[in-house]
This record gives sequence, structure tokens and C-alpha cells, in this order.
Amino acid sequence: MHTDFPLRVIPIGGFGEIGKNLLALEYDDDILVIDAGLMFPESDMLGIDLVYPDITYLTERADRVHAVILTHGHEDHIGALPYLLRYLDVPVYATALTRGLAEVKLREAGLLADSELHTITPESELRFGVFGVEFFHVCHSIPDAVGVAVDTPLGLVVHASDYKFDQHPVDGKLTDVARLRALGDRGVLLLLSDSTNADTEGFTPSEERVTETLHSIMQVAPGRIILTTFASNISRVQQTIQVARMHGRRVGVVGRSMVSNVRMAINLGYLDTTHDELLNTNEMADLPPNQVVIVCTGSQGEPSAVLSRLASGEHPQIQLHPGDTVVLSATAIPGNEESVNRIIDDLFRLGADVIYQDLCDVHVSGHGSREDHRLMLSLVRPRFFIPMHGEYRHLVLHARTAEAAGIPRENILLVESGQAVEVWPERLALAERMNGGHVLVDGLGVGDIGSAVLRDRKHLARDGFLVAMVAVNSTTGEVIGDPEILTRGFIYAAESEDLIEGAKDRVLSVLDSTAGTSGVRNKIRNALQQYCYASTGRRPLILPLVIEV
Amino acid sequence: MHTDFPLRVIPIGGFGEIGKNLLALEYDDDILVIDAGLMFPESDMLGIDLVYPDITYLTERADRVHAVILTHGHEDHIGALPYLLRYLDVPVYATALTRGLAEVKLREAGLLADSELHTITPESELRFGVFGVEFFHVCHSIPDAVGVAVDTPLGLVVHASDYKFDQHPVDGKLTDVARLRALGDRGVLLLLSDSTNADTEGFTPSEERVTETLHSIMQVAPGRIILTTFASNISRVQQTIQVARMHGRRVGVVGRSMVSNVRMAINLGYLDTTHDELLNTNEMADLPPNQVVIVCTGSQGEPSAVLSRLASGEHPQIQLHPGDTVVLSATAIPGNEESVNRIIDDLFRLGADVIYQDLCDVHVSGHGSREDHRLMLSLVRPRFFIPMHGEYRHLVLHARTAEAAGIPRENILLVESGQAVEVWPERLALAERMNGGHVLVDGLGVGDIGSAVLRDRKHLARDGFLVAMVAVNSTTGEVIGDPEILTRGFIYAAESEDLIEGAKDRVLSVLDSTAGTSGVRNKIRNALQQYCYASTGRRPLILPLVIEV
Repeated sequence: MHTDFPLRVIPIGGFGEIGKNLLALEYDDDILVIDAGLMFPESDMLGIDLVYPDITYLTERADRVHAVILTHGHEDHIGALPYLLRYLDVPVYATALTRGLAEVKLREAGLLADSELHTITPESELRFGVFGVEFFHVCHSIPDAVGVAVDTPLGLVVHASDYKFDQHPVDGKLTDVARLRALGDRGVLLLLSDSTNADTEGFTPSEERVTETLHSIMQVAPGRIILTTFASNISRVQQTIQVARMHGRRVGVVGRSMVSNVRMAINLGYLDTTHDELLNTNEMADLPPNQVVIVCTGSQGEPSAVLSRLASGEHPQIQLHPGDTVVLSATAIPGNEESVNRIIDDLFRLGADVIYQDLCDVHVSGHGSREDHRLMLSLVRPRFFIPMHGEYRHLVLHARTAEAAGIPRENILLVESGQAVEVWPERLALAERMNGGHVLVDGLGVGDIGSAVLRDRKHLARDGFLVAMVAVNSTTGEVIGDPEILTRGFIYAAESEDLIEGAKDRVLSVLDSTAGTSGVRNKIRNALQQYCYASTGRRPLILPLVIEV
Repeated sequence: MHTDFPLRVIPIGGFGEIGKNLLALEYDDDILVIDAGLMFPESDMLGIDLVYPDITYLTERADRVHAVILTHGHEDHIGALPYLLRYLDVPVYATALTRGLAEVKLREAGLLADSELHTITPESELRFGVFGVEFFHVCHSIPDAVGVAVDTPLGLVVHASDYKFDQHPVDGKLTDVARLRALGDRGVLLLLSDSTNADTEGFTPSEERVTETLHSIMQVAPGRIILTTFASNISRVQQTIQVARMHGRRVGVVGRSMVSNVRMAINLGYLDTTHDELLNTNEMADLPPNQVVIVCTGSQGEPSAVLSRLASGEHPQIQLHPGDTVVLSATAIPGNEESVNRIIDDLFRLGADVIYQDLCDVHVSGHGSREDHRLMLSLVRPRFFIPMHGEYRHLVLHARTAEAAGIPRENILLVESGQAVEVWPERLALAERMNGGHVLVDGLGVGDIGSAVLRDRKHLARDGFLVAMVAVNSTTGEVIGDPEILTRGFIYAAESEDLIEGAKDRVLSVLDSTAGTSGVRNKIRNALQQYCYASTGRRPLILPLVIEV
């Protein structure tokens, strides 16, 4: 065994957070990247559109990065690929469906022609420097997902990515227990695996449960069925098509991302249907309602997606009627519950029947629960274990499961994004703590918005602002004209004339009592802060502006 | 039966929304108010502190309002009482604990001395004009809760408020099934009852289940136990004290609202403990950790409450250590999940063990589920039914339960706050739609913030603002000096000099090409909007300011 160097594990994203999964393995001069995901902004990242991983560590070592391997086609695993490839000229390896989804993104970013993509299968074997790479199929809420086994100079690393042991997956392809067992037999140095449902006991239910629920819904629904799920949930679309067939219904797909994913999945052979079998817009309108199923975007309450436009009556083609049944076949991600609930209420107001997860099993998670974790651990039997993919509490709970499964506590390491780890043959050690931070995307800006701007946005959101502007004669210091007060988000100015006049008086009295203009801005700010708080109990952002003319 | 007039049911709050429960019953010249609750702002009500019901309907008829009856002491049933009493000089009727909680609010508002409060019991009988009023005990997540039966000229109205049929309540007092059955035997015209859990099958579990969980936690916890719940959840505090005793632990209470509620509950005899039995701050610090339980505020992730300060290590008296066990004995209200999850993660980071609802039954709802609803309907057997207390989807589902229980569809009415109802002997009818709206409270302002200010706050939160200011000679129209650009929440100005300079150029070129100053503000706004969007993809709020000197 070649042990001059430790194997370095660099968790750039996805450890102690949800999404933005990106892991680098490094040995001496060789670096291999697994996944390149993005994250959706947390609710206090006001105005932020997307969050990329901070890939400085990789760009500083660009010539040593051999490849990016994608484990499956979800946004939090492939969404930052265009960003990554803008800075790193490396080949990408993915299964056919994952590659198809990645290509859509690269085409949109104008990077497809310059990107080198390779299709792999669970049977592929690759070599990058010292690393030998194999794959194994796993079940997840998208087809064609794989885990990765990396043979390193120190031993075998198994990256199980997101998985569950579904005994009845929609595409009939089970998580490859035999391969996992065989890897375990070869001896595994380190296991990294998904922790998302580490607080849920038992096995995650099979997709079969959703199929059963869909059957009972289609049995009794008197009119159209409108089903919404994640646009990437090709399996759910497949289930819906299969069940619809048995009830004499046909399926139409609505919503840009859903349409393009379904089209691609059909072309690549990942959806057992044809473009002709699916309903076009006219057919959706003309067929008797009880023969129609519409699959659409918007399961997270996104304001511009189809479901929310149906709920507000603003969709150009489709109007909801009493008799329609809406099925929300997804869980609201924390932060989205309120808007999803509001949409459910609006759908009920339109007279539709609405079936959501509190009512019956119209969705199951694609992530394994504790029993899945135990099975993974007992198949792979790693020497070392690092839980990944989950918020910090999930990592803690997953680590406990591993300890209970017999891995010594000192062989388990809890790390968060940005905390490098050194793996030596006999021990795990924390290495340097890098910038594991975020790159915030807002409009066209990538990384130009930092904590100062976010702090201002938070301040403005709460109490608005007030600009006080006054012109003074630059030689005499005399005030020219009246001060002007501009305010938004603080008070309703049209009905607050007294308050505005009072603010002007404060500005004038500061100027009266101050010789010269030095420090006068701060004095105006302080006077107005006190004045606003005393009159309203609010603290608007105050910007004084003194112009000398 | 005296039927010159219909009985009017005026749902001012709590129908099709969560919280702000306030209902008026009106017959001819007599008005009776049940509850006066407030609501916590929804996430898009930026900067808003509280939401009151719009009581215009009552203040316009102030001389006809006989009384306010409070069903229990939760914020969403008593929180707007000070606001109501500022405008209405009416007596308040409540059970002892509810009265105690209401008095705390009235004292804080400086209104206690001028308020007329009366203590009632489930045996009380009152008369207000044509209305005869009785009460019946119900179980809820606070002791001393009642429902109200109002005898009207048209028949009996039963207002069940919030309830569940708990067979093992903490205080041993069951929901009064016999009274409900007796009311049903007398014949009930109309039932109004809680819909909160209308999407949950079965009976809501008994509080007993939480007791069992607390036993198993205290059995194994190696050090201190820190338990957080709603400050009004006196029953949960009682359970904790009882279970702690059996495990040789004593309980301390931390957090202003929790301390004052517990003190009051002890004084009124609603908590089976003494001030001496509870730990003071020194005892909490000095006793061996495995003899200490701390009950504290912050179960909703409120930033200034105890739990969040423990999680950030900023509490002045208490620091968390490995070995501590934190129990979150509450459900996160929609909108609070993200901050609660963040706190759980931070507590784990400090090395504490954290037990929350996904892991085991440390909380049960105080609201009945479908089976409770069925039992209520079958005991009361009303002619008419109006579901209340819940978002719109809950009202719909509760109405379905009532229909399945045998109430004809035409005898059930779904209404939202502000929609008056007329009850005639043989039918329900929609009456006028009033302003059922909100009164937003922000700082000292009550009702001064409307949709325009909220829209601005939303805009500012997303993209910030940019003020462009320029002075021109009022006679020549010539520009004096340079334009000034002020911006916050849009870009990081210190690193965006080019962008700022570009904006100044735009302002100057608009002024160059425009004769006079009329319309120049709009032209500057348009030019800067285009410029900002083209350079950044963002749309800050733009305020042009042209000063003539």
C-alpha cells in the first residue's frame, strides 16, 4: 500500500446543508470531483436567485482536476456544472439521463459546444491518475442514478450519493445490493453517504405506495386530474402515465422545465411512452375531463410555475373548475410551506378537490431512512465513515446510526462544507478549514452580493428608508430652499405629511445649530433616527445628503 | 319562536385563516362578541409585528355590543383584547386562568384599571339582551378552556371553540361530553367549531402520550434537560414538573412570558407546584445537571427568546454543554420551520442531544382531528353547521366531514372572515361582505401601513434602491455640479464605481437631451431602470430627485 500521502476528502458543499453537493477527492497531484450542485437560497438571503459552491479550491488547482462525475440529474447535483465548467476545463462523466439533463443546462449557458461529456453505465470502469473509478446503480427519485466506488492508493472509497433500497422502483431497477456487498467484500476504506432522512425510522416507503394512491385517486376522480411534482421526477411522471392508461386516461405535460425533461427522457428511452401518446394542448382541452391527466410544474409554490397560475386563475390555456382534482405529489421544502398552503387554499376556493400529503400518500421520499442507512453500512462495512448530504442534525443522527452499527466512534468524522479531511490508513484527521462558503447569484451578478448588501436588504424589508436632502450655499453655509424628504417602505408618505414636515424641521434645526458642513450628515442621521423611532417605533435606513452649490 | 329578524353571525376573524379569532352574534339590537384574538404576520407582511382584526363593524355599533366572552387564554383568542377595549367599553367574561392571562395584557397596555372583567366557570349562566349564555368545559392545550352555548330567539348556538376529546388530560378534566349531549338533546340550531386538524384522520392523541415520552427521555438523559414549548402551554409545564419529580429532578423556568404565565398559573391554582419547588437561577446552576430540568421559551425559533440565545451561546445565565438534552415540545408553525431547524442544528453543534418531533412524540396537538369532529357533530346534532378556526382547506374538509355525518349540504356554509351570515329558522344565507381585513401593527403604528408600503418593502427586499440626485439652475436649466447616486441593497457600492459612474452619465445625458425640467424625473427613472437591468439583471426601486436652485 502506497501511503506517502493521505487521501484528502474536500467537502465543498452538501455537508451540514441541504443541496449544493460537491465533493473532491485528492491524492498527491490528482483531484477528482463528484457532483456540481447548486442550492436554493435560504429565506434570509433576500433577493438571491441561486447559491453556487465556492470552487476556489478547485480553480487554484485547475490543472490537477481530472474530471467531474455526476451521480444523478437533480439540481443540487448538477445545477452548478455550467459555473464550474466556466472555470475548469475538465471532462464530465454521467449516465445517459443525467448527461441529457446536464446538456440542457450547458446549452442554456452557451457552453455545450465547448464541453466534453462522456456517457457511463454502471458497468463502466475509468481511470484518472491514481484513481480507478467504478459505478453502481442506486434507486432515487430520478432514474439512472449511480453511486461511485473510487479505488485510491489507500483503499476503496464508496460514495453512495442519494439512494434508497426500493424493492418496487418504477423502472424495476433495484439498488445494486450485490455490487455493494462485493465492494464490502473487497474491503472499503471510507463510506460517504446520504443523510437526508436520518431522523426517520424504518425503510423509506417504496414508490409502489404512490402508485397505489394514484390508482385510488383515478378510480374516483369525476373530472380532470392535475398532478404536480418536481420537474426532474421522471419516475413520478412514469407512474402517472402507467396508472392513467389503466383508467382510460391520457396524460398531458405543462410547464417549461417539465416539458423539456419529459421530452428528453422519452428520447433517451427513460420514459415508457411516446410523444404521440402524450396529450397536446388542444387534446387536453377537447377530451372529456375524465379522460385527462395534466402533469405540471409548481409543486413548491413557485409563483411563475403552472400550479400557482392555475390557483390564481391566470394560466393562459387551463382554467380550473369544480370537478377537477389537483394532486400535490411532492413535499414542500422548508421555507415553501406557506406559499404551498396558500395555493392549496386557492385551489379549494376555485372548487377543485385537492389531495396533498397530509391527506394520503401521494409522495414518498427518494432518500433512504435509518433502516436503509443500516443496510448500506452492513453491506459496505467501511473502516471509516463520513455522513454527507443533510443538515447538521442529519449528519449527527447518521453518525449515531453508524456507531450503533459497529463503526468505532473515532472512525467517524462529522464535517461541514469547507472542512478538509485527511484519510490515513489507520485514522481520519481534520485538515485545513477552507472557505466552504457560498457564491450568491442575483440576476447577472455572481458573487458580487455579500453580507453588507444582504444586511441592507433585511433592514429595508423591515422598515424601509428615508433620504433627507438639503442644498446649502458652499460659501455662506446657508440653506437653499426647503429640505426634501424621500421615503419608501417606512410610512405611507401621502398620509404622513406631519411626519414629513417634522423631519424637515429636524434637518433645519441641525443645520441651524451646526457651524460648517463637517459632521453634519451624521448629526442629521442621528436626529432623524431618534425622530422616526419616537414617532413610529420604526427604524428606517436613513441617508442624509447635503449638497453644496 | 320569535323570528322577526334573522340571527346574524359575523365572522370577523378566524374563518379561512389561522388565528385572529373573533366572532360576533347579532340579533336585532343585541351583539355578543366571542374571543378577541390576534394573528402573527404572514411571511410576506414584511416588518409587520402583529395583525389585529378589523373591528369597524363593532365600533360602528358600539352601544349595542353587550360583552366579550373569551374561550381560552391563547394569543389568537385574547391577544387583540387591549385593542378592542380601547374602542369598545364592554365587560369581559372569562374563566379564572383566561382572565389572569388577559389581565397581564391589559396591565401592559395600561388598560386594566378601566376594564371590567368577570370570572365565569362552566356552571355560569349569563344573559345579554336576548342572548342567554352557558359554558361547557373543553380540553385544549391550555387549562380552563370553555365552549359557549348561546340561547337565541331562533334557537341554540354552540360555539365549541378549540377542543379535543382527550381521555387523559393533564388536569384530569375531560371535555364535557354529557353537557354537549344534553345541548344536543335540547336541539341545536347552529354549531361553529374548530377545523385546524380537519386534514388529520383519527382522534388527536392524548397529552398522555407526551407524558410517556418525557418519562423515557428523563430515564436516560445523562445531564440537564432543557425543554421548550409555547409560553401559554401550562399543561406541558405541569407534565414536565410531574415527570421530573418521579426522576428526582427539579424544574426551573426561564424566559419572560413563560415565567409570568407560570407564576400566574401557580397563584390561581392551575399548576400543581409551588414557587419554592421551582428552581431559581442559582439552583439551576448549582444542582447536579442530572437533577435539573429547564423549561424555556423559544419553541418557534423567535430570535430573542431563550432557546435561540442558548443555541447561539448568547444567553447570559445558561450555557449549553455536551451531555445536555434539549427537547422541542412544540410543532413549528408554517413559516417558522427554517429558523427552528437552524436552531436544532446549532444545538447539535454545541454537542447537546436534541429531541424534536420528527424523532418521537414530544408534542401532540391541542386541536381535535377528524374523529373528534365526528364525535362533536354526533353529540351536538346541529341543524346548521359553519366550520371555523382554520385555513380555507380545513374549512372545506371539515364541511365534508359534517356532510358525511348527515348534515345536508345546504345546511352547511363555508365562509371566510368578513362574510356575514344570516341564520333563519329553515335556512342559512350569505349576507353582506364586510371589510374582514387586517389591521397591521408595525411599531407604534396601528393600521397606518397598507399594501403600498408592503409592496415597496418587498421591492426593496429583493433589489434595494437607487436615488439619483441632481441640482439644476432654475433659470438656465444648467446642471450644477455632479449628479449624486445613493444606493443600498442593490449593489455593493464600494466595489461598483464603474456602475455608479455609468448611472451618473445616464442622468446627465437625459438632462442634456431634455429641454426644461418637466417630465425629466420620469425620463431619468426610465433611463436608470434600463441601465440597472442591463448591467445587473436587477430592478432596484429608482427615485430621481431634481433640485432647482
